[in-house]
Amino acid sequence: MRATDVIAKKRDGEELSTAEIEWFVTGFTEGEIPDYQAAAWLMAIYLRGMSRRETFDLTRAMAASGDQLNLSDMLGYTVDKHSTGGVGDKVSLVVLPLVAAAGVPVAKMSGRGLGFSGGTLDKLESIPGLCVDLSESQFVQQVLHYGIVLTGQTRSLAPADGVLYALRDVTATVSSLPLIASSIMSKKLASGANGIVLDVKVGMGAFMKRVEEARALAQIMVDIGADAGRDMVALLSNMNQPLGDAVGNALELREAIHALQGKGPEDLREHCLAVGGHMLRLGREDTSEYALSEAMAELSEMMDNGAGLAKFREMVAAQGGDVAYVDDPDRLPRARVRDEIPVPRAGYVAQVNAMLVAQACLELGAGRARKGEPIDPAVGVLVHHKVGEHVTEYDTMFTVYANDERQLVRARELLEQAPVYRDRKQQPLPTFYDTIYSR
Amino acid sequence: MRATDVIAKKRDGEELSTAEIEWFVTGFTEGEIPDYQAAAWLMAIYLRGMSRRETFDLTRAMAASGDQLNLSDMLGYTVDKHSTGGVGDKVSLVVLPLVAAAGVPVAKMSGRGLGFSGGTLDKLESIPGLCVDLSESQFVQQVLHYGIVLTGQTRSLAPADGVLYALRDVTATVSSLPLIASSIMSKKLASGANGIVLDVKVGMGAFMKRVEEARALAQIMVDIGADAGRDMVALLSNMNQPLGDAVGNALELREAIHALQGKGPEDLREHCLAVGGHMLRLGREDTSEYALSEAMAELSEMMDNGAGLAKFREMVAAQGGDVAYVDDPDRLPRARVRDEIPVPRAGYVAQVNAMLVAQACLELGAGRARKGEPIDPAVGVLVHHKVGEHVTEYDTMFTVYANDERQLVRARELLEQAPVYRDRKQQPLPTFYDTIYSR
Repeated sequence: MRATDVIAKKRDGEELSTAEIEWFVTGFTEGEIPDYQAAAWLMAIYLRGMSRRETFDLTRAMAASGDQLNLSDMLGYTVDKHSTGGVGDKVSLVVLPLVAAAGVPVAKMSGRGLGFSGGTLDKLESIPGLCVDLSESQFVQQVLHYGIVLTGQTRSLAPADGVLYALRDVTATVSSLPLIASSIMSKKLASGANGIVLDVKVGMGAFMKRVEEARALAQIMVDIGADAGRDMVALLSNMNQPLGDAVGNALELREAIHALQGKGPEDLREHCLAVGGHMLRLGREDTSEYALSEAMAELSEMMDNGAGLAKFREMVAAQGGDVAYVDDPDRLPRARVRDEIPVPRAGYVAQVNAMLVAQACLELGAGRARKGEPIDPAVGVLVHHKVGEHVTEYDTMFTVYANDERQLVRARELLEQAPVYRDRKQQPLPTFYDTIYSR
Repeated sequence: MRATDVIAKKRDGEELSTAEIEWFVTGFTEGEIPDYQAAAWLMAIYLRGMSRRETFDLTRAMAASGDQLNLSDMLGYTVDKHSTGGVGDKVSLVVLPLVAAAGVPVAKMSGRGLGFSGGTLDKLESIPGLCVDLSESQFVQQVLHYGIVLTGQTRSLAPADGVLYALRDVTATVSSLPLIASSIMSKKLASGANGIVLDVKVGMGAFMKRVEEARALAQIMVDIGADAGRDMVALLSNMNQPLGDAVGNALELREAIHALQGKGPEDLREHCLAVGGHMLRLGREDTSEYALSEAMAELSEMMDNGAGLAKFREMVAAQGGDVAYVDDPDRLPRARVRDEIPVPRAGYVAQVNAMLVAQACLELGAGRARKGEPIDPAVGVLVHHKVGEHVTEYDTMFTVYANDERQLVRARELLEQAPVYRDRKQQPLPTFYDTIYSR
C-alpha cells in the first residue's frame, strides 16, 4: 500500500477499505507515515467526509492502537459516560458515585480542562492528596473492590488518538464530525465499558453551537458504539448558560458534593438524574426490564439518603484523597479576593452567556490555554440567577473569587457582558433537547 | 497571521487575500511554516480550488520567492516557450534557434525528463562538452551576445515552487489545475520574458488526457500571464502519437538538427512553425502589426536556408559543445543493438499509443523514474508511420536502439501493443486542437 494512493482515494471522494484505514492509522502512529501525509489525509477526510463504515473502522483502528481493557469478565456489565465539554459541568462527579452506589460498576478515564471547557480531573484534584494517575492495574483493582474509579487517561489508551489530535490541532482539521466522533469513541471503546451515555452539549458554552450539528455528532457516536457492540444513549443538553451555579474547580467540586447531599442546584440535579438514570438503566437492563423513571427515582433517593456521597467518599479515600474535604467542602481552597457583580436593573434574565463566564474564569486562572499549564483551583465564579428568573437591582448576579486584582478587572469586564435582562417574561431554558438510543 | 486560520479559510471555501497567500508561501519557503501545515493547505486548495485572483497571487508569490530576471532593459522584448511535456517533443531545440535567427531574443530555462515526459536539457546534453548549468550572469551575457540561451533552471529561480512541488508529490496534491498552472507560470514569470507561448499537450502521451481539461489549464496559465502583464498564447496540441519520428535523447536531437536543415518529419515541421510563429509574432508585434502567417513563412524560409541551424550551432559553441556533432548528427551516440518491429498485417494505422512508446523508452534507459537518476542518451525508438497511413506486412513500424538485451525484450513487449491497425481508412490526427490568446 502507498500513502499517496490512500490519500488520493479519499481526496476523490471514494470510500476507503477497512485495510486501508487500519494501515494508515497504524503507519502514522508508528511513525512510518510522515505527518505531512497524515495532514493531507485528514484534510481530505475533513472535506470529503466518511461513511458510517469508514468512521467505525477509523475508530476501531485508533482504539486498537494501544491497550484495550476488557472488564466484563471480572465485573459483568460496566457503564461509562462522556461529556463533549461545557461550562460548570461537574456531572461526572455526581453521577458516577450514584450509579456505583446503585450497584453498577463505573470505571471512567477522564480528561483535563482545555480552553473554555473544564475537566473533571482538575476539579477532583482540588482535594489534597488525591491521585488521578492510576496505573492500569490500580484502575482495575479499584473498580473491582469499590465499584468506582475515576482517573486520567493512560498513555497506552488509544495512542493513535493522541498523535492524530495533536496534528489536527495545527492543521485546521479539528471540527470534522467523523474525526471528532472517532477521537471520543476510540477512547471509550478502548476503556471497555459495555454501556456508554454521551452528554452532547449544545449552545454558546459548547463546541457545538446548533442542535442539528450536535444531533449529527451524537448519531455518529451512537452508531460507532452500536457497531462495536456497545449499548449507547446520547443526550443533547443545553449549554447556553452554565450548568449549576459554580464555575471553577474547587467551587464546582463543592457544588458536586452539595448535589450528593441532595442540596445542589435544581438544573444540576435534573441533569445528573437523567445522565445517571440512563447509565443505571443500561446496567440493570442487562439482566431484566428496568424503566428509566425507576432508575431516576432510585438515584434521587441515593442523593437524599447520602448513599452516593458515601460512595464518593470511598473513592476519594481509595485514591489517597483527604476525606475531611468531602465531609466539610467549605475547607476546599477558595481565592483571597471576593467580589460581587450586582444586577444593574430589574427585569427577567434572558441570557447568561456561558462562553463569557468561561472566559472570565480563564482570566482568573481557573483554566488553561495550552495543555500542561498549571491552573488555580481556588478561583471561579458563582452564578446566582438562571434564565427566566425575575431579578431586581438589589440582587447579585455573580460572585467572583480571584487571587489577583488585574485578573479580577478583566474577569469583571467579561462577566458584565454575560447577562441580558428584559422587561418581558422569559422562558427558562430546557435542560435537554433530545435523546438518541442505539436500541 | 496564523497558519491554521489561513488553512481554515481555504478549507471553508473562502477566498484568501493577497497578503495571506504571500505570507503562507514565504513562510513555508523559509521554513517557518512546517510541511504538515502546508500539506493541509495544499489539500484544501486542491479540493476547494482558487479564484483567478488567488491563482495569480500564488504564482506571483512563488515567482517572488527567488531571483527575478528582467531582461527588457537590456534586450527589449524577449520571448519564451513552455511545453507541458510529451513524447518525442524536441520542439524547443528547433524553434528557439529559428526565432533567435529572426532577431527576437530567446532566453529559456528548461527542465529534465521525468517519468514518461522527456526533457530538453537531457537531449541537448547528447552533444559532448555542452554545458547546461550556466550561472545567471552567463545566462544574461549569452543572450545579450547571441540572442539565444538554453540552460537549466537555477536554484534561485522560484525556490518556492521547488519545495511546494516536492510536497505535492508526496501528498497526492499534484493534479490540481491552479497548482499546476502556478508551478509552471511562477518559473516563467521569474525568468522574465515579455511574450510566452505555451504548448499544452493533450492525449495518451500527456499529463492532460482530455481536451477540455487541457483547455482549462491553458486558460488559467494565459490568465496568470496576462495578469502579470505578459503577452500569452497557448496552443492545445495533440499528444496521442509521438511528435515527429524519434523518441530518445540523441535520436531526438538528431531529428531536431534534421528539422533545422529543412529535412525533418512533416508533423514536427508544422508544430515548430506554429509554436515559433506565435513567438515571432509576439516579438515583432511589439513594434508593428505582424501576422502569424508572415511569421510562419519567415521561419519556414530560415529552416530551408540554414539560418536556424547556424544559430543553433552558435549556441552550442557558446555553451562549450562540440559543433562537429551539429555538422554531422550521425556522430551522436547510438546504442549498440538495433532491432526492428515489423507491421504484422496490411491496413491503416489507427493508433500509435504515445504512452506505450514512452514506457518502452523508459525500459531502454532513455528516461528516469526519479529525479537525479542517470539516463542513456544513445537508446530510443524511431516511429516510422503515423496514424492515417496505409502500411503492409513488408513495412517496419519501429526501430529500437538498445544497449541491453533484457531491456530490449521488455521494450519490444510494450511497443508491440502500441499500434492499432484497421482495414478501414483512418483520418490522420490533427496537430492542434485550439489556440488561446491573452489579447
